Amino acid sequence: MDYKRPQFFRVMQYAQRADRDVVDMVSGNPDWEPPQALREGLRAYADSNPEQFQYPASVGLRELREEIATRRGVDIERVIITNGTGEANHLAMAESLDRKGSEILLVDPVYPYYAGRVQMLDAEMDFVPVGEDGQLDAADVRAQMGDDTAAVVVNSPNNPLGVTYDADTIHELVSVAEAHDAMLISDEVYDHFDYSGRFESALAVDSPNRIVTNSFSKSMAITGFRVGYAVFPHPDGPNGDLMDGARSRHMLTNVTSSRPAQAAVLNALRETGPEYYEQNRDMLRDRIETFTTALDAAGAAYTEPEGAFYVMAQFPDFDGTMANVERLIDEAGVAGMPGEAFGEARSDWFRFALVTPEVEEAADRLAAFFE
Amino acid sequence: MDYKRPQFFRVMQYAQRADRDVVDMVSGNPDWEPPQALREGLRAYADSNPEQFQYPASVGLRELREEIATRRGVDIERVIITNGTGEANHLAMAESLDRKGSEILLVDPVYPYYAGRVQMLDAEMDFVPVGEDGQLDAADVRAQMGDDTAAVVVNSPNNPLGVTYDADTIHELVSVAEAHDAMLISDEVYDHFDYSGRFESALAVDSPNRIVTNSFSKSMAITGFRVGYAVFPHPDGPNGDLMDGARSRHMLTNVTSSRPAQAAVLNALRETGPEYYEQNRDMLRDRIETFTTALDAAGAAYTEPEGAFYVMAQFPDFDGTMANVERLIDEAGVAGMPGEAFGEARSDWFRFALVTPEVEEAADRLAAFFE
Repeated sequence: MDYKRPQFFRVMQYAQRADRDVVDMVSGNPDWEPPQALREGLRAYADSNPEQFQYPASVGLRELREEIATRRGVDIERVIITNGTGEANHLAMAESLDRKGSEILLVDPVYPYYAGRVQMLDAEMDFVPVGEDGQLDAADVRAQMGDDTAAVVVNSPNNPLGVTYDADTIHELVSVAEAHDAMLISDEVYDHFDYSGRFESALAVDSPNRIVTNSFSKSMAITGFRVGYAVFPHPDGPNGDLMDGARSRHMLTNVTSSRPAQAAVLNALRETGPEYYEQNRDMLRDRIETFTTALDAAGAAYTEPEGAFYVMAQFPDFDGTMANVERLIDEAGVAGMPGEAFGEARSDWFRFALVTPEVEEAADRLAAFFE
Repeated sequence: MDYKRPQFFRVMQYAQRADRDVVDMVSGNPDWEPPQALREGLRAYADSNPEQFQYPASVGLRELREEIATRRGVDIERVIITNGTGEANHLAMAESLDRKGSEILLVDPVYPYYAGRVQMLDAEMDFVPVGEDGQLDAADVRAQMGDDTAAVVVNSPNNPLGVTYDADTIHELVSVAEAHDAMLISDEVYDHFDYSGRFESALAVDSPNRIVTNSFSKSMAITGFRVGYAVFPHPDGPNGDLMDGARSRHMLTNVTSSRPAQAAVLNALRETGPEYYEQNRDMLRDRIETFTTALDAAGAAYTEPEGAFYVMAQFPDFDGTMANVERLIDEAGVAGMPGEAFGEARSDWFRFALVTPEVEEAADRLAAFFE
């Protein structure tokens, strides 16, 4: 499969051209308000002096790195600000491959951009399928590790499945990486959307074999701002070359990340209390409840969402192909993603993103369609 | 030489730690006001609805691409918005190498990021030295082209030399690229700062063997915003694969460029008249005049600046080494870049960036130091 052309845009275009109104459950674009302090930060930045409009340090605004380092409990030298989690994952994968090995291990179902990046980096990829319940078994990862494995990329809370990996899983994954002298790359961009209370950051385990990536795209509802970060092993310790390499690659690819966005996020980080995040988490929990109730009514199987804002579901006698995605758009007025876009393990499922206030309407439409 | 660690930061750090006030002529950070409409665009964006805060199209905001395409007289399908000229050049080089060949030809003296990118892409590089007058002779480029040459990268108006290539040179460079089935990559980020009236964009020549890169970093005094673009051959024509590859690489590296910055630039492009650019050009012309007059007084040789905002100069018995850069900082209170950072051809020269209102003070200090 050619992962270098993610299918999101193809589905969105089809939905936009449809001859009816369609509930868009395709992309992971939050539909709620950003923190008020984000808007204020951007306004204040717009009025700042010309010096503030010039290159920040290539690794990012120092105050923003400090704020992140303090919150994550890591040394500032380990933090690099990136153009969203996308670039953070790119740097993590590219530097892991530069360090050792030729293969990246991914989880199936997979977030397609991971697979696309592996292809772009001319590396090999292999997939570890999840279990029936959507959970990843670290023993399955261990069984597929080889001498050529450069890195394992995991995402928790997970897109597309919505599962959250618990502390045991995360600790075991780090051990597996250490045992095979590979890197664990833990993408935690949905960390503010854990409904299970079981989420564990890979930063909880002290290890030079782990890179954590994240961003403010989802937690602050600003996917277009492109402010993310990676936490690498300390540049002065074991595997310290990874950070040096990432700094250099970031500088030579992008020079630095966009400063207005960094300034706005800095203000939002400082001024936004936990209520903002709780409120959105509660709203999404309600949407999930509404949507899965309708799935039950439609006789669908689905993975119980514990985090993020996606639901993967399987309908009786209606596979998650592109053709059926188009039928759902035309006949039910609901646009989801075909499971086949996310690999083999759930290729006959659909993925729905709950980033629309019309979740209830979509649920009703699906229930009626499958009645 | 290791170009993967540009020396700018080393010099800036030394200057900051100096035990005296130092005129900073190191980096290319404009010190003048951005267009008023840029600030207004950013303020308006800060008040927009949450939908405007989400992913724009990966290739950039459609209205911004349209505005650029119209101004440059090219089809919109040829334009991709990038994270500054830096990423535009990265995409252009990476895709040229994917297309054919293993070598990139650069001009010496060179903008160090070009050389760093070639090293990061694991390609070979070769240098074409400029003539005594700082001009590039297309015949010299032709003589160094081989079967393995993937691309030639030029910059006009030029950093670090300040020269501008005329129409004949640009047309010949395109011919040379065509004759060797290579790409000409023309970085025109200083196009608004041509004092000679001789500047010719490579877009003036119709050819599938040419990529033009640019940004608003210098023309709008916003190096920190990271809004640039590349104009590739049309995706439906000869060498159309380059654009497809660049879109994919951009998506998988960065997902998309930061939207607040794109929105602000779009407003500034639409609302800013030619007076803004003329005024800054006039100011820089005056600074160049002031500075070169002082260089004459100091007995220095220099390349007559025709564009951009840099002056390369050679002082009698005082080579442009890092040690002498530090002496100038400590003893004269002027921070410039060592010529050796830009390759071999002008390794005993210095480069001064005229991005400070203190140009006259710097000129006086240099004249006194070399008296």
